[in-house]
Amino acid sequence: MNVIPQWLIEKKRDGGALDAAEIRAFIDGYTRGSIPDYQMSALAMAIYFRGMTADETAVLTDAMMRSGDLVTFTNWPCPTADKHSTGGIGDKISLALGPLAASAGLAVPMIAGRGLGITGGTIDKLESIPRYDTRLSIDAFKRVVGEVGCSISGQTERLAPADKKLYALRDVTGTVPSIPLITASIMSKKLAEGADTLVFDVKCGRAAFMRTREDARALAQSLIRVGRSLNRKIGALITDMEQPLGRAVGNAVEVAEAIETLKGCGPADTRLLTIELTALMCELAGVYTDHATARRELATRLDDGRAFEVFRRMVTAQGGDVRVIDEPNRLPQPCAVMDVLAPQSGFVTFVDAQQIGRVVLQLGGGRVTTAEVIDPSVGVDRLVQAGERVEKGQPLMRLLAKDTAGAKALAVNAARAVRIGKDREPERIRVLESISG
Amino acid sequence: MNVIPQWLIEKKRDGGALDAAEIRAFIDGYTRGSIPDYQMSALAMAIYFRGMTADETAVLTDAMMRSGDLVTFTNWPCPTADKHSTGGIGDKISLALGPLAASAGLAVPMIAGRGLGITGGTIDKLESIPRYDTRLSIDAFKRVVGEVGCSISGQTERLAPADKKLYALRDVTGTVPSIPLITASIMSKKLAEGADTLVFDVKCGRAAFMRTREDARALAQSLIRVGRSLNRKIGALITDMEQPLGRAVGNAVEVAEAIETLKGCGPADTRLLTIELTALMCELAGVYTDHATARRELATRLDDGRAFEVFRRMVTAQGGDVRVIDEPNRLPQPCAVMDVLAPQSGFVTFVDAQQIGRVVLQLGGGRVTTAEVIDPSVGVDRLVQAGERVEKGQPLMRLLAKDTAGAKALAVNAARAVRIGKDREPERIRVLESISG
Repeated sequence: MNVIPQWLIEKKRDGGALDAAEIRAFIDGYTRGSIPDYQMSALAMAIYFRGMTADETAVLTDAMMRSGDLVTFTNWPCPTADKHSTGGIGDKISLALGPLAASAGLAVPMIAGRGLGITGGTIDKLESIPRYDTRLSIDAFKRVVGEVGCSISGQTERLAPADKKLYALRDVTGTVPSIPLITASIMSKKLAEGADTLVFDVKCGRAAFMRTREDARALAQSLIRVGRSLNRKIGALITDMEQPLGRAVGNAVEVAEAIETLKGCGPADTRLLTIELTALMCELAGVYTDHATARRELATRLDDGRAFEVFRRMVTAQGGDVRVIDEPNRLPQPCAVMDVLAPQSGFVTFVDAQQIGRVVLQLGGGRVTTAEVIDPSVGVDRLVQAGERVEKGQPLMRLLAKDTAGAKALAVNAARAVRIGKDREPERIRVLESISG
Repeated sequence: MNVIPQWLIEKKRDGGALDAAEIRAFIDGYTRGSIPDYQMSALAMAIYFRGMTADETAVLTDAMMRSGDLVTFTNWPCPTADKHSTGGIGDKISLALGPLAASAGLAVPMIAGRGLGITGGTIDKLESIPRYDTRLSIDAFKRVVGEVGCSISGQTERLAPADKKLYALRDVTGTVPSIPLITASIMSKKLAEGADTLVFDVKCGRAAFMRTREDARALAQSLIRVGRSLNRKIGALITDMEQPLGRAVGNAVEVAEAIETLKGCGPADTRLLTIELTALMCELAGVYTDHATARRELATRLDDGRAFEVFRRMVTAQGGDVRVIDEPNRLPQPCAVMDVLAPQSGFVTFVDAQQIGRVVLQLGGGRVTTAEVIDPSVGVDRLVQAGERVEKGQPLMRLLAKDTAGAKALAVNAARAVRIGKDREPERIRVLESISG
């Protein structure tokens, strides 16, 4: 089809809905380079203002998915499933969820991303494990899924290249916060992985991409609509991201917390969210018929070591040094540690995830531009959580730093992230709602 | 100033007003190439949706004006003035207005454009005159203004280059119809010419860039606000562009009609609008104190040949063959002419300017892309006007064509442009309103 790109831009600008052939021609032209960035960015801005219908969003997603290679699990012996999180501080859920779901009988082909800004990325975290290969070919990826039940690898150049190109463009043209564009970006990559069931953890709050619960719900509903129309089993949890998840924020230190969780230990909130998301996934995929059974069965698989065993085999299959899994103190260790002490006694009423995220970024545990290199050893550990009693002079957290000067420079900011009050406040609910399609 | 372009895009996207330093830095970066097209087009689309305040528009205009060379008329012995039309079918007013205003004592430095689509351009029309130089250097341009009182030349590469670049980008990104962007585009070029007084002919109707009177008024008001804030004397007429102006549409044929007008003849509507716009210009510049005097004095200058004499001297000064001015039948003549006949008797109730414009375009008298070459000899002449009585079989117009086949192919479409009814209908008013600042 021979489209005149500016006519489509004008149609969207004037509030019209683009038809399937128009959207496919635009994305195809953009991927091949015959439609230049300046027309794509103008269309993206028009979409920001005018939105897209559910049908348009589904076609956009499908076109972006088909812009590159597709992983397929045709006639696979078990249901395939994956989970995606919109990103939060201390969010190491994928590391535990993948192996846990596999231990329950699902195949989990998980293509994960890198961190940007205050938000960490699963791939960065896994690269704390010496020699763990995050650049599997599609064949190797499928082989690990077949052998272990779960593989977590990085996005290849050939998976949804339209999204790669468009995402980079949106980032510098003020067109990131658009529900249809976010939906297509997330879904095109996830659909290209070939999983039948998809579960989304849409986070909301000041440390999340979606600030308000309403925005998070709108994104969750959009993801579900598109997934459903493209014949996927799909569900989403909307979860609170005002406070960090768990007690560890960084890279190696989050792997360590994930391992604890996989061994039936770890912070209660990390364990809870791991189980809730995996349970939703298993129910949608038909592994368990009700939520209570799913929760119970999955808790057992964490407690008896079956989930951990899958994780161990995945690390082995992807070439990683399995000794660091068995002995997490072999993970990259920081050169300097420093405890941040409570300035007063009382109850922790709030831990500011955004502030903690910034501290970890400044310690060198994150990146602002995609070119920067992350230090896997730095971060925050042993972080107190809301509701806990602290005494003046007791540690609120441990800073893991490149050097003592770096830790000292951030101690005041780190301490400010923890609010201490006279009285214990009601616990904030982490899982705000569950939406299924 | 070191701006992050996407922050400014986001600020505008979210409805904020950009400050002067931000706008100047963006336009400067875009002109130099450090800000790429894809960020400029995203900003342009955000401006389309959010608009700009009068202050923002004035700064944008000023920044675009200052992106290249400025013509200056400091300490010039007489007031300088120019006129700009947003473009219409048969609009040859500039050709007569420039010399007429100069004959009344104004200096008229007029940089004019080429036609695109159904709308003709003054420069294309002037190039019907053999050897007339439309590519004067700024020095030569000023010399002709000084010697003759009027010069009409084409836009140089160095005049408002930011506008040249942005206009080409807007054309392919759906960001043309934005009042602040249109204002800055028109005004930046006109201000760079250095005239103290500016008059705008903002046309409205189906054959005009602004379709409705409301849109035309909004543009006129925006132009006046910006011109006033940049210390120009400024006024605008809003004129009807549903029907062609005069009896000739094309290039050489419009020069011929302009010459008739400059000699005190020509169609009444062409003469009227020439006088009205020149009168407004002269009043604003202080040449005449009231409109009635201005009209009377200017009519005299058309009738006694003083205006024609300035035109003749301008053509001579710019190297043109003055014999074609004295004997317009020496202008480029078409290879084939064909009269389009009235299919019935009655009164002409309406002549569709858009349809006539399309016929002239198809005859080869216009261009769709900037690369196309125009045939100066083709067009439409002897066109009937609303209110006239026609008898079945009498000519409605004469098609000036490259060959008889071409004329025949368009005859039906041409005839359809003229509506004939039983009764004479009330005359449409051409000058709808006058706005001064």
